Amino acid sequence: MSVRDVFWLKILMVTLIEANMKVYKRITSDDLRSLVVRPVTSLAELEAKVNPIVSAVREQGDAAIRHFTREFDQVELNSLEVTTEEKIQGPSQLDESLKGAIKQAKENIQRFHEAQREKQVDIETMLGVHCWRQSVPIKKVGLYIPGGNAPLFSTVLMLAVPAMVAGCSEIIICTPPQKDGTIHPAILYAAEISEVHRIFKIGGAQAIAAMAYGTETVPQVFKIFGPGNQYVAAAKQLVNRDGIAIDLFAGPSEVLILADDSANPAFVAADLLAQAEHGTDSHCLLVTTSNALLYQVQLQIEKQLTSLSGNRHLQKSVDNFCLVLVKDMEDGIALSNLYAPEHLIISTHNAMGISSKVENAGSVFIGHHTPVSLGDYASGTNHTLPTNGSAVAYSGVSLDSFLKKITFQQATVQGLQNIGGIVTQMAIAEQLPAHANAVAVRLKSGE
Amino acid sequence: MSVRDVFWLKILMVTLIEANMKVYKRITSDDLRSLVVRPVTSLAELEAKVNPIVSAVREQGDAAIRHFTREFDQVELNSLEVTTEEKIQGPSQLDESLKGAIKQAKENIQRFHEAQREKQVDIETMLGVHCWRQSVPIKKVGLYIPGGNAPLFSTVLMLAVPAMVAGCSEIIICTPPQKDGTIHPAILYAAEISEVHRIFKIGGAQAIAAMAYGTETVPQVFKIFGPGNQYVAAAKQLVNRDGIAIDLFAGPSEVLILADDSANPAFVAADLLAQAEHGTDSHCLLVTTSNALLYQVQLQIEKQLTSLSGNRHLQKSVDNFCLVLVKDMEDGIALSNLYAPEHLIISTHNAMGISSKVENAGSVFIGHHTPVSLGDYASGTNHTLPTNGSAVAYSGVSLDSFLKKITFQQATVQGLQNIGGIVTQMAIAEQLPAHANAVAVRLKSGE
Repeated sequence: MSVRDVFWLKILMVTLIEANMKVYKRITSDDLRSLVVRPVTSLAELEAKVNPIVSAVREQGDAAIRHFTREFDQVELNSLEVTTEEKIQGPSQLDESLKGAIKQAKENIQRFHEAQREKQVDIETMLGVHCWRQSVPIKKVGLYIPGGNAPLFSTVLMLAVPAMVAGCSEIIICTPPQKDGTIHPAILYAAEISEVHRIFKIGGAQAIAAMAYGTETVPQVFKIFGPGNQYVAAAKQLVNRDGIAIDLFAGPSEVLILADDSANPAFVAADLLAQAEHGTDSHCLLVTTSNALLYQVQLQIEKQLTSLSGNRHLQKSVDNFCLVLVKDMEDGIALSNLYAPEHLIISTHNAMGISSKVENAGSVFIGHHTPVSLGDYASGTNHTLPTNGSAVAYSGVSLDSFLKKITFQQATVQGLQNIGGIVTQMAIAEQLPAHANAVAVRLKSGE
Repeated sequence: MSVRDVFWLKILMVTLIEANMKVYKRITSDDLRSLVVRPVTSLAELEAKVNPIVSAVREQGDAAIRHFTREFDQVELNSLEVTTEEKIQGPSQLDESLKGAIKQAKENIQRFHEAQREKQVDIETMLGVHCWRQSVPIKKVGLYIPGGNAPLFSTVLMLAVPAMVAGCSEIIICTPPQKDGTIHPAILYAAEISEVHRIFKIGGAQAIAAMAYGTETVPQVFKIFGPGNQYVAAAKQLVNRDGIAIDLFAGPSEVLILADDSANPAFVAADLLAQAEHGTDSHCLLVTTSNALLYQVQLQIEKQLTSLSGNRHLQKSVDNFCLVLVKDMEDGIALSNLYAPEHLIISTHNAMGISSKVENAGSVFIGHHTPVSLGDYASGTNHTLPTNGSAVAYSGVSLDSFLKKITFQQATVQGLQNIGGIVTQMAIAEQLPAHANAVAVRLKSGE
C-alpha cells in the first residue's frame, strides 16, 4: 500500500487526543501511515519454524503427521480420517434448530455462488475464427478448517459450498481433532450438507503439507483454501512457492466503518466489537463525519463491553480501535479506499450512493441494518476475503476460486485464410519464423 | 503434479527407442514421470542474485535503476520515461501493413475480452437480504514487456488491451531499452492503440522492483503482469511475497499435440517447431495413436528444420521433443490432463468431442487448421497462460486478471428480522457472542 498518493492529506490534519482508543480528530501524514499501513510480520522467523514440519510431512508422510498430532494436539488417533460411522454419529447429536440455521445459511451461500456461473459464449472474432472460454472445476481441492476454541463450521460452508457448486470431484477437509480425538458435530454436519468427500483429523502446518504433497492417507490436492493461525498461513506460503495454488494470503481480520450522523452509535459499537472478537490483532476503524457519533460510540463500546465480558481478547482489542473524524464523506471514502479494508460497513445517508465509490474492499455492508455478521454466516456472500490491504488487487473467494477458465479456439479453412496473413506478418516482425511457418504450411497445403 | 493417480499406467508400457528425439512407444512409470514432471529450477540461487537488485531499487529508487541499466543494458538514458515526442515519432516509422495487422489483432483481443464482462445480478437470498458482486478495476497495473532480440509487441496487446477494457486508471509498461536507448516502434504503436498511459525504459529485475515499490519516476502499481527471463520471474516471486499481486509464475513454454491418423504430419511438425522456437527449454510433446504419423512427423521435422535453419535454438530444442504413441485417444487425453499443458492442440477426428474431455490446459486449439500461432497473436484469446503444470489450478490472463469482484449486501429491517435468528444461532454456536450481539442490538432497537 503506497502512501505516496495521499492527495487528500492536506485536508486531514493530525492530533492524537485520547489514550485508551486511538481517536484522531486531525490527521497527520504519520498518523495516516500508521492507520493505513498494517504492521509487517516477519515471515523469515515463522518459516524457520514451519519449514521443518512441512519437510517432515513431505518426506515421511503419515508417520510425521502422527508425530506432530501427538506433539501439538496431544491426541493419539486410531484413524487419521473421520470414519463413516463418525460421520453419521456426529451430526445426529446436533441440536435440530442449529441444523436448520446451518442448512438455511448453506442454501443462501449456494444460491449466491450459483449465480456466479459464467454462460459460455462463442465469439467469432473474424469470419471462421471461433473463440470461447469454458469453466472447468479444479479437480482436487483441500479445505483447512481451524480448530481452537470454537468449531468454525461457517468456514466449512464458505469453502465447501462453492467447491460443490463448481463441481470439484475431490473435496477434502483437514481440521485438528478435539482433545478427545473427535471432530465437532457441527463441522461434520456442515461438511455433510456441502457434500465434502473426505475429512481428516489433521491441524496446523502439517495439514497444509499433507494436502500439498499427499501422504499414504491424505490425497494430494491442486489448491488449498482456508484460514488458520500464523503457522498455517506460513505453511500455505511455503507450499505455494512449490507450485500449489492457495486461496489468499490471510492476515488479521479488519473492519472499517464509514458513518455519519444518521448512524446508531450502539450498532457501530457492536460492529467494532464483533470484529475485535476475532483476536487482539484485529483492525477496527471508525471513520466518521460526526463528532457526536465519535463520542457516543465510545460510550457504547464501554457499555457493551461489560455485557460481553466473557471474551478475554475484547478489552485488549478495544485499546487498538481507531476512531477517525473526517471533514466530509468524500474524505471518508478516500481514506477507506486507501486502507482497502477486508470488511467495509457504510452506515450513512445515501449509503447506496456512497457504495458506488468503493474502489478497494473485500465485502461491503450497506446501511444501518447490515452488520458484518450477516456476511460472516448467512447472507450468501463469501466470508473468505482479502486482508492486509490486498483488496487493492485481490478478490475474496468465489465460485471462480474453484474453477479454471480454459480458452478454446477453432479456425475453419476459411478462418485460417482470413487471419493467416495477420499472424504471419506479426510473427515475422517478432522474429519468430517458425510461428509464421505453422500458418504457411497450412495455407500452402490448400487442404 | 502428482504421479500417484496414474491409473492408466497399466495400459501404457515403456520403451525408449530412438536417440535423437525422445520417442516412446510403450511407456513405463519412470518415463511417465520424466514426461509429466517438469524439471525443478532452484529458486534459492536465483533469489540470491535478484534480491540485491530488488533491495537496491527499493531503497535507492531511480539511482539504482540507472546503475543497473548501465550495467545490464549498457545504455545511459537521459529520461527513464518514453517522451511524448518518442511516442509520436516511433510509430510513424512503422510499416503501414504491419500496423494494420497489429490493429486487427488488437480488435480481436478486445472483442474476446469485452465478452468476459460480468453482468451484475442482484440475488435476494432471503426476503429483504440483497447480495451482489461488482467488478471494479485494479487501479494501477504494471506490464513488463521483455526485450532481447525481438520486440514482443504482441505481449503489449495481450496485457494492455484487457487492462484497458477493465478500466484500470493507470496502465504502465516497463521494457528494456534497445542499445541506442530507444524502444522499438512496434511496441510503442501497440501501446498507443491499447491506451497505455506511461512507458519506462527499464528492464529486468530492476523494472519489477520499480513497479512494486515505486521510485521518483516510476509509480507503484498494485499488480504486475508479464513474461520475462528467470531473473524477472524470480523478482516477481520476491515482490509477490511482499504483497504485490502478480499474474502468474511463468515457466518455459509448452505444447502438447493430440493427433491421430487424420492429422497432417507437416502441420504437426510445424506446430512443434513453432513452440521450440521460444527457447531450448521449451517442452514439445506429440501424443498420437498413429505409428505412421509418429514416423512421418519425424521426417517432416527434419525437412522443415532445414528451411528454418536461421534459429540456433531449434536443433537443440528438437532433441528434447517427446513423441509418444498411445493405445487410443482415451489414453491420450488422460496423459494430456496429467501433463496439464500450457497449449493443447487437438488434431484428430471429432476434435470438438475430444475437447470436451479437457480437464487441465491453458488454451486449446481445435482441429487441423488452428495452430497455436493464431492464439499467440490474433485469434482473440490471451497468450499469457499457465505453464509448468499449473493449469491444474490456474487460468490464463483474462479480463478478470485486471478486476476485483467486490461483494455487496444490504438488508432491510425486514431482511434483518428474517436472517437475524440464523446468524445469532450460528454465532453463539461458534462462541462468538459479539457477532450475535451486532444482530441483537439492531433487533432490540426496533428501528
